[in-house]
Amino acid sequence: MFSLTVSSHVFIAHSLKGEIFGPAGRLHGATLLMEAEFSREELDENGIVIDVGEASLILRDVGQTMNYQNLDELEVFKGKQTSLEYLAYHIHGDFRKRLAGRFRGMLKITLRESPQAWAGYAAPIDE
Amino acid sequence: MFSLTVSSHVFIAHSLKGEIFGPAGRLHGATLLMEAEFSREELDENGIVIDVGEASLILRDVGQTMNYQNLDELEVFKGKQTSLEYLAYHIHGDFRKRLAGRFRGMLKITLRESPQAWAGYAAPIDE
Amino acid sequence: MFSLTVSSHVFIAHSLKGEIFGPAGRLHGATLLMEAEFSREELDENGIVIDVGEASLILRDVGQTMNYQNLDELEVFKGKQTSLEYLAYHIHGDFRKRLAGRFRGMLKITLRESPQAWAGYAAPIDE
Amino acid sequence: MFSLTVSSHVFIAHSLKGEIFGPAGRLHGATLLMEAEFSREELDENGIVIDVGEASLILRDVGQTMNYQNLDELEVFKGKQTSLEYLAYHIHGDFRKRLAGRFRGMLKITLRESPQAWAGYAAPIDE
Amino acid sequence: MFSLTVSSHVFIAHSLKGEIFGPAGRLHGATLLMEAEFSREELDENGIVIDVGEASLILRDVGQTMNYQNLDELEVFKGKQTSLEYLAYHIHGDFRKRLAGRFRGMLKITLRESPQAWAGYAAPIDE
Amino acid sequence: MFSLTVSSHVFIAHSLKGEIFGPAGRLHGATLLMEAEFSREELDENGIVIDVGEASLILRDVGQTMNYQNLDELEVFKGKQTSLEYLAYHIHGDFRKRLAGRFRGMLKITLRESPQAWAGYAAPIDE
Repeated sequence: MFSLTVSSHVFIAHSLKGEIFGPAGRLHGATLLMEAEFSREELDENGIVIDVGEASLILRDVGQTMNYQNLDELEVFKGKQTSLEYLAYHIHGDFRKRLAGRFRGMLKITLRESPQAWAGYAAPIDE
Repeated sequence: MFSLTVSSHVFIAHSLKGEIFGPAGRLHGATLLMEAEFSREELDENGIVIDVGEASLILRDVGQTMNYQNLDELEVFKGKQTSLEYLAYHIHGDFRKRLAGRFRGMLKITLRESPQAWAGYAAPIDE
Repeated sequence: MFSLTVSSHVFIAHSLKGEIFGPAGRLHGATLLMEAEFSREELDENGIVIDVGEASLILRDVGQTMNYQNLDELEVFKGKQTSLEYLAYHIHGDFRKRLAGRFRGMLKITLRESPQAWAGYAAPIDE
Repeated sequence: MFSLTVSSHVFIAHSLKGEIFGPAGRLHGATLLMEAEFSREELDENGIVIDVGEASLILRDVGQTMNYQNLDELEVFKGKQTSLEYLAYHIHGDFRKRLAGRFRGMLKITLRESPQAWAGYAAPIDE
Repeated sequence: MFSLTVSSHVFIAHSLKGEIFGPAGRLHGATLLMEAEFSREELDENGIVIDVGEASLILRDVGQTMNYQNLDELEVFKGKQTSLEYLAYHIHGDFRKRLAGRFRGMLKITLRESPQAWAGYAAPIDE
Repeated sequence: MFSLTVSSHVFIAHSLKGEIFGPAGRLHGATLLMEAEFSREELDENGIVIDVGEASLILRDVGQTMNYQNLDELEVFKGKQTSLEYLAYHIHGDFRKRLAGRFRGMLKITLRESPQAWAGYAAPIDE
């Protein structure tokens, strides 16, 4: 299995809903270090999993939809819990749309909010 | 598959038994960066894999049993080889006990002793 | 010259005022990795610059005044530009109050908002 | 599943062939941070996955074949695309030869060319 | 003293001249993590040392003159030893030209070629 | 001012003497990431501050005197408080002896015991 990972980061504000989150229920923010790992069984005709430049561009485009934003006010997150896990899943969905017809394999999104906590979502992109 | 990881660290002393370990057979020590990665197929009712606060607390509690200790003198490690791999397995067992009835899924423990060497143990928590 | 540094982190939301900040003028957030470096010419009677435990506690206490907060709504930052540089200066001031009579020497505060940008403020604590 | 990882680095020059690589088609270079992760179901008679010292030595030996080299001029890479993915596969092959009869399990090679891009190749070593 | 640092990276090939460099005398390459630290006594009218966006842009522009290049073939390095130290000095000179009239204070350039070796050059920008 | 830094690490056991250290008064251990930063005003005839290879060798030799050791049992630390600060000072002294006649300038030793605490000692080497 071959893999290729690119990373970038975004600055976001948000709040979490539910008693268990304590102070994280208040409006606060985080730097999210984003990683997108692409995996597939065989290399393509250029000898790669996916072009680093293309993968980085998609990551930045996807990130731009939330960079320097208050997620609590974005239409796309209305009624959603913007936990790290859910945000990874949401970003995975954005990638899926942009990758349609250009990549088949596994995609794992990882979001690091601090050196002490991070989350991920992994699922195949197979259309 | 969703995942959530928390990390912390402990300071321990120990020695390894066996000729192949050379100078590591002497009493020495290490800072162990500990990571606990929880994975499951679905998010819970709060939209998360496990509460970061709860996971961090368990990690710290488990770490306290060996923090600032000489493992060679702890009853629980008598007759055991306290390699990084075994310590990861041991910590996994401690987590299993504390997570009983609170988490079902995969748990991976990673211990980093330096930027150049680390070890892990992964197994499902399914009771 | 001896030095001792401790680090921690906080999650904050804020916005910057001024055209040059572009999208950072919107309410967003960041994880701030905080470092406090204490320097002095001689070690104390315990053979240290300052106790790691005490320094870490002050750092956490100081951080708590902004952790999980929207800085735009805190009284203490009213009319202030909460740039990384200013926040480092503000934290330095908080340290100065708490260290009164307990430490003489240089104190440098560093705040890292991403792997690609960080800021600091250094000045002597000499009362 | 137990795992043990060792890391090191090499300095290489190379160029990539194909229009999609843009400026990376020119002769340039990179520091490659190399990681070799060994995984197996059971620990050996010493209570480990593989000896850290032995694993580090193999990693350094394998790295020496390309350290301080222009890969475009090495016989072994003639006609090959020396992408990170391919280099990880190539290094995996070198490990396989050296591990014959000494390790059975999964081996994953990861190569990091910057904090923002890395690649890997994973396959079982089962002879 | 206030400071603001931005970072980026470039991929370069080069060789060093002189017996003491051993294998580094061969054409090889490196990823150079570049940091530019700006320091000054007072914040400007925007409450900052220098705009992060402007500083990052200069860093990238300066980096572009050597990114994906073989330094041995660039006119600007003819007859020069492209050690990390000299490259830091060279980059400092490029910054000095671009900052003329826009920044007065100390500038430190740091170049990291691996987790185990880095170099820097610091001097005032005071025209 | 030019600078060149090399890094490495050692595994040590020790205990600290004094009530303020709490649990660190017990025999425990740490991985110490060691950095040696050499600074001088001018580059030498090879266009460098000091040879990376030579500097790394000295760092490893100096580290070997404490690697895989219980510092409480080493003659050289009898009656000494082996705090990070003191160890940095001690290592600085070892460097001074080995550098006699080979380097004039500033030397800073940094020891990192965890991502959350590190210490240093800096003084000129001018014999």
